[in-house]
Amino acid sequence: MHSSDDTITAIATARGRAALAVIRLSGQRAVDIAASCFRGKHLKDAASHTVHVGYITSSHGTDIDQVVVTLFLAPRSVTGDDVVEISCHGGDFAARLILDRLLEAGARLAEPGEFTQRAFVNGKLDLAQAEAVADLIHASSSLAHQVSLSHLQGRYSEILSDLRAELLELAAFIELELDFSDEDVEFADRDRLVRLLERSGRLLSELLESYRLGAHLRDGVRVVIGGRPNAGKSTLLNAILGRDRAIVSETPGTTRDEIEAEAEIHGMLYRFVDTAGLRETSNAIEEEGVRRAERSIEHSDVLLYVYDMSVGLDEQESEFLRTVRERRPGLPVVVIANKRDLVDDAAPEPDAALALSAERAAESEEELSPLIQQLRAIVGGEISQSDASHVVTNQRHRHHLRKALEAVLAAKTSLDAGASGDTLALELRIALHEIGAITGEITNEDVLDQIFSRFCIGK
Amino acid sequence: MHSSDDTITAIATARGRAALAVIRLSGQRAVDIAASCFRGKHLKDAASHTVHVGYITSSHGTDIDQVVVTLFLAPRSVTGDDVVEISCHGGDFAARLILDRLLEAGARLAEPGEFTQRAFVNGKLDLAQAEAVADLIHASSSLAHQVSLSHLQGRYSEILSDLRAELLELAAFIELELDFSDEDVEFADRDRLVRLLERSGRLLSELLESYRLGAHLRDGVRVVIGGRPNAGKSTLLNAILGRDRAIVSETPGTTRDEIEAEAEIHGMLYRFVDTAGLRETSNAIEEEGVRRAERSIEHSDVLLYVYDMSVGLDEQESEFLRTVRERRPGLPVVVIANKRDLVDDAAPEPDAALALSAERAAESEEELSPLIQQLRAIVGGEISQSDASHVVTNQRHRHHLRKALEAVLAAKTSLDAGASGDTLALELRIALHEIGAITGEITNEDVLDQIFSRFCIGK
Repeated sequence: MHSSDDTITAIATARGRAALAVIRLSGQRAVDIAASCFRGKHLKDAASHTVHVGYITSSHGTDIDQVVVTLFLAPRSVTGDDVVEISCHGGDFAARLILDRLLEAGARLAEPGEFTQRAFVNGKLDLAQAEAVADLIHASSSLAHQVSLSHLQGRYSEILSDLRAELLELAAFIELELDFSDEDVEFADRDRLVRLLERSGRLLSELLESYRLGAHLRDGVRVVIGGRPNAGKSTLLNAILGRDRAIVSETPGTTRDEIEAEAEIHGMLYRFVDTAGLRETSNAIEEEGVRRAERSIEHSDVLLYVYDMSVGLDEQESEFLRTVRERRPGLPVVVIANKRDLVDDAAPEPDAALALSAERAAESEEELSPLIQQLRAIVGGEISQSDASHVVTNQRHRHHLRKALEAVLAAKTSLDAGASGDTLALELRIALHEIGAITGEITNEDVLDQIFSRFCIGK
Repeated sequence: MHSSDDTITAIATARGRAALAVIRLSGQRAVDIAASCFRGKHLKDAASHTVHVGYITSSHGTDIDQVVVTLFLAPRSVTGDDVVEISCHGGDFAARLILDRLLEAGARLAEPGEFTQRAFVNGKLDLAQAEAVADLIHASSSLAHQVSLSHLQGRYSEILSDLRAELLELAAFIELELDFSDEDVEFADRDRLVRLLERSGRLLSELLESYRLGAHLRDGVRVVIGGRPNAGKSTLLNAILGRDRAIVSETPGTTRDEIEAEAEIHGMLYRFVDTAGLRETSNAIEEEGVRRAERSIEHSDVLLYVYDMSVGLDEQESEFLRTVRERRPGLPVVVIANKRDLVDDAAPEPDAALALSAERAAESEEELSPLIQQLRAIVGGEISQSDASHVVTNQRHRHHLRKALEAVLAAKTSLDAGASGDTLALELRIALHEIGAITGEITNEDVLDQIFSRFCIGK
């Protein structure tokens, strides 16, 4: 990364035809540079949080575009430095010309994530909050958006900071004891230490457990639908997609024979995949068929297997389901007995989790609710706004949380075994270090560069 | 179109992942509606052109996104009504949630072009300026951008208004004479009338002639490149594309065998097309070959035909060029004698406009300048900033300019023939009407709806 004395600039809005585009400048010379390209009010005398209409002009004095310039003076800006936002006509061309003009006038093109990195360096955001900015932009469902916003607002960071503060206090007492070890004094309250380690362990475990939901929020839930032809898979899929007035997009999947459709259900993004592999398996139980089916479900989170109640689940299908469960023991498999309207008296197979009529579901919302409930129970998508701050969505965080939990558990074991203060202090220090790495209290250049380089330019 | 009492809203930036997105509100209740969804400063008391950081909240009071709200109070806004701009996190999701929230709070989704239409209705822009807003967004080259900006700034409208004012004055005098026709008074100065009609005719002709350039600015210049295999077409194309550090994009063309590459040269967008039709023609002079070649050049603006000087232009090629010129007499054909480095002593064929070495052009900029000059001369892309206001880019305007010119010429003929004041007055009224239709002084609902419906939503 470059010197933070530079004034950086980038187009902050998406490319494409639109009414508006916005170019952002941040740095000590932001106002100077903007003023040198601006025909209108004298920007250098203007107050923070004011808006000025005028023209960006070329170095020859010709007009480039009519713009609205907004000033955010340090420290009252998103980066903590002086920030100037230039709103121009959309459609890429004006924004590109203005960007070139600002570069010519002395600004430097921002690296990906550099605006947010400056906010972090200037103490406007901690590292977890900075990462939430990127998550917010990539959010693809309401819940993902809600969790990212909550993290950006700092509630998640607060939980970690509170935990860290408590551990730090106890670590300090233990280290004090070590300094006075000749005198055999006890500064740290052992009971409090036990309670704190237990509580910390529980909290860290909870956060780690939330990562499964967090990953689902981040990436969506991949649900593979299997079953024999005419079992009613398409009817069921259409009923699910239609039910919640979902955002539906049919895209060609990763293989030629895959059909994918997306739906947001209760704020969570689901990607339903109908694969050729699973369609054919039902006709060919031999090794090759199962291998293809396995490839289909390899990266899936749930398998919905649909069969026709009026025909029944045959031996081949049962054998297929057994194989799947054997080879991917962690995968939730929901067997659905479909067409229950045709066989009102027959009971579903013991393997079936529920019976429904996909035909009826198109008219009656209730028909699907047991299935939707089951999906939500599997995924864990029931969170309130206060829960949102407890959901871990970031792989880097999971890594540090795991290390912190290991250290806390080790400290607890040491304490139970009556180990020395040295050992205990070391283990607490490790936990502190790992938790601090999440919010950026403990960090290094390389890690920062790696984190911010994943951002888009202009952020 | 709906009542202009409504408060309208739309996302004003392009879709896609980015740092920022902007949602716009315009109308009497814009500030009220924004305030009812905003947690932060009390917006209703805030001054125009001020900026406020806070949160957009749902109707349940939960936070939707952290935003920056900018107020533009009537009449100091782009539409002339109260305008509120809400800048939120990019990536579509936040903008969509906020848009939904504003609709729920009483705003209406804007029709395409409705913001600009309100600016027109409120007298902030005339119709030609409003159309320039759309052109600015669609500009695909620096010159196109410059011309649209000049039109938006009203210089083009001014030319038309000045002309209209003069014609109006004279029409008024002639009509005054008619009122006093019993008394045989002459209010209008006949010499001045002749001069004015001649000047108007010249101006309207000039504007009409500029449309060819205007259409090129709007759509780019399609240059088809033909020639036998190994004549050096690709080398030439690469030299042209490389030369101006052009914006190059190879796209599959409209037919499977077409290769297209774009370059901005001296501010003008060129689309160079290498087509299979023209490649094959050189081997098959029969009717079918020519037909395919004709299809290739059907919508082109220039044909560059390249031949190898060391081989010469053969009889088949000359015959092909004759046929093209016969069937598309208006098409500029530039025959290029390539590989002059191989045959320093040989003179190019009489048919050739210039000789060059595409090989050398990769190293030396000068090698290409005669060709570039020729292209610019054909297209007419030499315009200064003051010229820009005289370039007509709009088909609707061309229609009205033609009608106005017809009326002016008819008036001149009537005047020369000593026709009655009645006839003259009628012809001047037609000219006035047609010129007024361009800037919107004369207009009707249907025309307006048709014009603004071509805009994008949010503009």
